[in-house]
Amino acid sequence: VGVGDDAAVVRHDGRDVVVTTDVLVDGVHFVLRTCGGVAAARKAVAVNVSDLAATGARPRGCVAGVVLPQGTPFRLFDALARGFARAGRDFACPVVGGDTNVGPGPLVLSVAAFGDVGPRGPVLRSGARPGHVLSVTGRLGGSILGRHLSFRPRVAEGFVLGETGVARAMMDLSDGLAADLPRLCRASGVGARLFADRVPVHRDARRARGGKSPLERALSDGEDFELLVAHRRLSKAMRRTLARRGVVLHDVGEVVEGAGVTIVEDGRERVLRSRGYDHLRRARGRR
Amino acid sequence: VGVGDDAAVVRHDGRDVVVTTDVLVDGVHFVLRTCGGVAAARKAVAVNVSDLAATGARPRGCVAGVVLPQGTPFRLFDALARGFARAGRDFACPVVGGDTNVGPGPLVLSVAAFGDVGPRGPVLRSGARPGHVLSVTGRLGGSILGRHLSFRPRVAEGFVLGETGVARAMMDLSDGLAADLPRLCRASGVGARLFADRVPVHRDARRARGGKSPLERALSDGEDFELLVAHRRLSKAMRRTLARRGVVLHDVGEVVEGAGVTIVEDGRERVLRSRGYDHLRRARGRR
Repeated sequence: VGVGDDAAVVRHDGRDVVVTTDVLVDGVHFVLRTCGGVAAARKAVAVNVSDLAATGARPRGCVAGVVLPQGTPFRLFDALARGFARAGRDFACPVVGGDTNVGPGPLVLSVAAFGDVGPRGPVLRSGARPGHVLSVTGRLGGSILGRHLSFRPRVAEGFVLGETGVARAMMDLSDGLAADLPRLCRASGVGARLFADRVPVHRDARRARGGKSPLERALSDGEDFELLVAHRRLSKAMRRTLARRGVVLHDVGEVVEGAGVTIVEDGRERVLRSRGYDHLRRARGRR
Repeated sequence: VGVGDDAAVVRHDGRDVVVTTDVLVDGVHFVLRTCGGVAAARKAVAVNVSDLAATGARPRGCVAGVVLPQGTPFRLFDALARGFARAGRDFACPVVGGDTNVGPGPLVLSVAAFGDVGPRGPVLRSGARPGHVLSVTGRLGGSILGRHLSFRPRVAEGFVLGETGVARAMMDLSDGLAADLPRLCRASGVGARLFADRVPVHRDARRARGGKSPLERALSDGEDFELLVAHRRLSKAMRRTLARRGVVLHDVGEVVEGAGVTIVEDGRERVLRSRGYDHLRRARGRR
């Protein structure tokens, strides 16, 4: 599948292997001084596992590359190793290999994970169609208070949503709904309408400080790592089936014809600006 | 297979998938200012493909993670993309996905590649036995003059050596024969004896400047990315078969009982010190 999805899909001996990679940098994706090596390594695995979950894949394993700053004490090396091992166990995604180097910059953790999907194949971003409902798997916003490190990737949910055929398009929310939903829409060639009063706001979005409202935080903080799902309207029976398998969906909007994302708030519909965090925007200087 | 081999082997739907990762840092593994983004990206893919070759695997694809320095011009981003695409084509190892970030340090290129092996399974480092011959697939030393960027991974050779069952243990020479051979020996629980007059010295090892002799360069410069192979003594027929399939082996020594590596030079046998480049030595501060 083309570049732009959360993961790539490769046919291997007649079966699909889903592969993904994410690179985390100290000072950008975590602050080593405050979170420590164990949490940093855990996050490096977790964000990759979340990418697998977004395709409905179950993780099989990962490899981890590390660039240590010069003069790194052995205890950091050791903490990273423990963090990788723990995350591998917690997420059933063992670190099967790696590479360690020393460089002149900050700590860099690079993980590539692979997984497999059921017979329906992977769920892509491109399957959303007008009339679909848009849902998320949990509450959004304020992840900076800690959830961006401690979140649990929605692997079980992603797998159920893929296996049952419920998810027609799916991605994980890494940059915030306001930034990520337009990507899903572009991949599917559709537009979307959100309803402000349905967006599930996390209590951390109310606690976090700064100039943003809780709703703005829920839309644009990012690093929620919940799944965004486009699906047909669910029957009561299917909703019960999903609930029994641990999947709760919060409907937040609908897929519409055309392009662009709007949000309905207090009865008024306006264009939703992408205020999510975009790691690339500064590098490319355009978009 | 355990940590320490060039690649990990994961059973996927009953078939072996070989997975490897290598992280390259500007100023350590390449000098971006002089080599440019295309060559840097090519090397990042090539070193991973070489790790696959060392197990006898054929590459199937890779994912690439990039950490761009702050303020990176778009033309570097573009050069990296072209380098990744070109390497993917040249080595039949397409870049199927990736992740791009911006960080405060130097350029970091992280690639994870995967491949498959024939029915005999992967060749590991641990299969060397006393009596085996030790060979390399090409001339060594002086790679700093350019080969460390332009080398062609020994994929075809590795696959033939694996498929024919010739290779009982194999690895690629990234840190130099003097550093890498002891690793193969430790993995196999054996010792080894090299013969100085048989080590194939590359002409670049004679041209490169510095205090080392050509033989020292051949033993310790590193980044040769030739394969080191332990195998039974070859019959003339097998040697012809290999030659017909493009595999030329230079015998450099033999596997012996015990531990440690010695080198025979001018009729005298001495312990070979590991003067190869070890990226980890400085980080760990021990070994």
